[in-house]
This record gives sequence, C-alpha cells and structure tokens, in this order.
Amino acid sequence: MANSSDIVWHDASVQRAAREERLGQRGVVIWFTGLSGCGKSTVANELDQLLNTLGCTTILLDGDNLRHGLCAPPDRLAKEHGEDFASRFGLGFAEMDREENIRRVGEVSSLFCTAGLITLTAFVSPYRRDRDRVRAVVESNGEKGDFIEVFMDTPLEVCEQRDPKGLYKKARSGEIKHFTGISDPYEPPESPELRLDGGRNATPMDLAEEVIASLRGRGVIRSTGGES
Amino acid sequence: MANSSDIVWHDASVQRAAREERLGQRGVVIWFTGLSGCGKSTVANELDQLLNTLGCTTILLDGDNLRHGLCAPPDRLAKEHGEDFASRFGLGFAEMDREENIRRVGEVSSLFCTAGLITLTAFVSPYRRDRDRVRAVVESNGEKGDFIEVFMDTPLEVCEQRDPKGLYKKARSGEIKHFTGISDPYEPPESPELRLDGGRNATPMDLAEEVIASLRGRGVIRSTGGES
Repeated sequence: MANSSDIVWHDASVQRAAREERLGQRGVVIWFTGLSGCGKSTVANELDQLLNTLGCTTILLDGDNLRHGLCAPPDRLAKEHGEDFASRFGLGFAEMDREENIRRVGEVSSLFCTAGLITLTAFVSPYRRDRDRVRAVVESNGEKGDFIEVFMDTPLEVCEQRDPKGLYKKARSGEIKHFTGISDPYEPPESPELRLDGGRNATPMDLAEEVIASLRGRGVIRSTGGES
Repeated sequence: MANSSDIVWHDASVQRAAREERLGQRGVVIWFTGLSGCGKSTVANELDQLLNTLGCTTILLDGDNLRHGLCAPPDRLAKEHGEDFASRFGLGFAEMDREENIRRVGEVSSLFCTAGLITLTAFVSPYRRDRDRVRAVVESNGEKGDFIEVFMDTPLEVCEQRDPKGLYKKARSGEIKHFTGISDPYEPPESPELRLDGGRNATPMDLAEEVIASLRGRGVIRSTGGES
C-alpha cells in the first residue's frame, strides 16, 4: 500500500481546525468539580441541553454513563470477564481506583476535545493533582485554553442538606468510609477558569447561562449564538 | 435545585437524533479488524480523510492515540502514577491486557457513536469474543446497525512480506512471543458487515471508497454526499 501519504493523515491539528470551523465551535473540556450534591451534574446537564439548543455538538461524561462502561466496578465486569479480570481492572472507591477513574475520564475527554466537541464532565474529582494531570493531558494533546475548570462552589452544609442520594447520611453514620467532605478531603481549585456560586438562590439554568457567557467570552461558541 | 427536569435531560436518544440530523450523518462504529500489516490503519486513515472531505464528523481511534493515553503501557504510567498503579492499570500484551484494551476501546467507541460521530477503529482485535462484546456494548447503548465490522482480509503472506514495523521478523525469530498469525490465533469474523480484499492490487483509496459506498447504502451518510 505504497500510495499512502502519512504526512497529510497525521496532521491532526489541520483536521481539527477544519472540523471546528464546520461545527462553528471550539473543542474544549469543561470540567465540573465539586462536592457530592453540589449541583455539578444538574448544571452540566442543563448546560448540555442549552448548548444543543444553540446547535453545538457536545458530549456529557458523568458517573451515569461511565460507571456502567469504561469505569465499571468489579461486580459489573465479573460476569462477562471473570473474577481475576474484574478485580484488576474494575474500579471501586479506593484511592488508586479513584485516581484511575479520573485518569480514564481525562483521557477520553481529551479525545473528544481533539475531535472538536464541547466536552462536559461532572465528577467530584476532589484532588488537585488529579485535575491538574487531566489539564496537562488535554492541553498537551491540544493547546492551552482547551481545559476549562469549573468549580461548583457550594457550601458543604447546603450539599449535606440536599443529600439527593442519601450519601451524606451514610457517611455520617460511618456506613460509607472515605467520603469527600466528611472523612476525605476536597481540594478546591486554586485558580479555576470559572467559579459558580451553588449556594445562593440561583437555578441550574442561571448557572448554566453563566457558563455560556464565559464560553462566548473565550470564543468557544460564537458570541451571537446558533438558533437562539 | 428543584427546577431541574431530569426527564428531558436523560432522554439521550432524542438528543442523538437531533444531533445526527444537524450533522447530516448517523453515529456508527466502523470496526476494522485484521492481522498486523493488513492495511487496516492505512485504510482507516484514508477513510477518515475522505469522510472529512465529505463534511462528516469523525474520530479515528488506533494504537497511535490510545497506547499513549487511555491504554498506556505500565512504563508510561509509572512516572506519573507510581509503580503499583502502573502495574495494575497499565496494559501490556498479555491475554488479559489485550482483552481490557479492546474493552476500553469498545466503551469509548460507543460513547463517540452515541454522540453522533462516525467512529473509526483500527486494532488487530484477533478474538471473536472480544469483538462480539464490543458489538453488544455499542448496540445496547444505541441500536442494531451501529456496529459495522470491517474485516481487512489480507493473506498472512502479504502482511508478512510488508512487515512495516519488522514485527513478523521478530515473531519468527522468537523475539516476540504471542504474535497474532504466527504464534497466536486470529479468528476471522464469521459475518462481518464488510470484507475488504487487502491482498489484491487495490490502493487504500479504492478500499476506503468501498467503505464509503457501504456507508451510503446503510444510510450512515447521505447518498449524494457533502462537498464532493
């Protein structure tokens, strides 16, 4: 197969630029981080809907779609792949497992970003080091500005009061160990691209609109947007 | 955050249909399988270029972009994550590692497919069971017809003669153990959606055009295509 011209094929940045032109957007990773119950998933979902209304091409990565597949726990993998396989590659909530979870999500986000998609992720991702590693991966596969860290800054008291999945209750009773904010640390971003105040009376739509405004400002989406 | 309406947000299939309408294509996984040196990467790259010329939105997943990130080997992970982490989650070429490699690629392909992208993958993927599992994942997250298995049917003699990376030579000398086609089996697909004859005198472009014709026939791309 001597006719192949590898030079053209592997010039991924040319292809990315052409695709972004066609899609009318820049590929980015919008990385929501914050305590359990802070509203990051809710706002990310709202934002995803809004962006789609504006004609944007997006993907939303969160526990809902990853914990069933790419980052499945051991018991989910065991049936299909056997116990040895499941205990090695399945992800629980131990420190190493959480690190690998964020690593996998980060790598996948980076792929979506280089494909030109507006990539939304919603994970607690409590450790600064893990988030900074994702930032480094995304930027090294693309360019500076591709990683937008959004800190959902909701007071612990508010999150615990909401407790949508009853997890705080279990963490307080000791039924869940290593729970972020209770028995495990949350390291807030030092200089996130965006900080959302999840404690005040803003609706998810208000907060999603705040992100949209930031995206327009950064040239990720056109400042006079799509169909709206 | 009581204003959220989860029902709308999680209706992924509605969103997927709208996006596919906008992109003018159907999300699919085009899974190239075949021996090392059979030409699958070359044809997948050619196809990727062609599809982009037609205005399609694509992603190409192959060893080049995954072995450096999501499916990195232990030595690559060790520097950043330490030895214990690397030896557990890093992927070598042992049987279990290869199974996990294909599983991760399959899960990621499925995410891209549901996002509406034409997703090209180029991996030897020698085991029928592994490929069938990917098909099941892709179809269960989407629908039947989302997985298009393309068997690059190139005789072993031709692959070995090309030997672009000198791997067959090493396999024959025993330097590489467990090499597909030499010391490890390759299980050809029993009923692939498409079979490409990599042995005859066709150029990568000819073979990519064959795939394009098949995609038009399947309604993945419009039968009168894009800018060409």
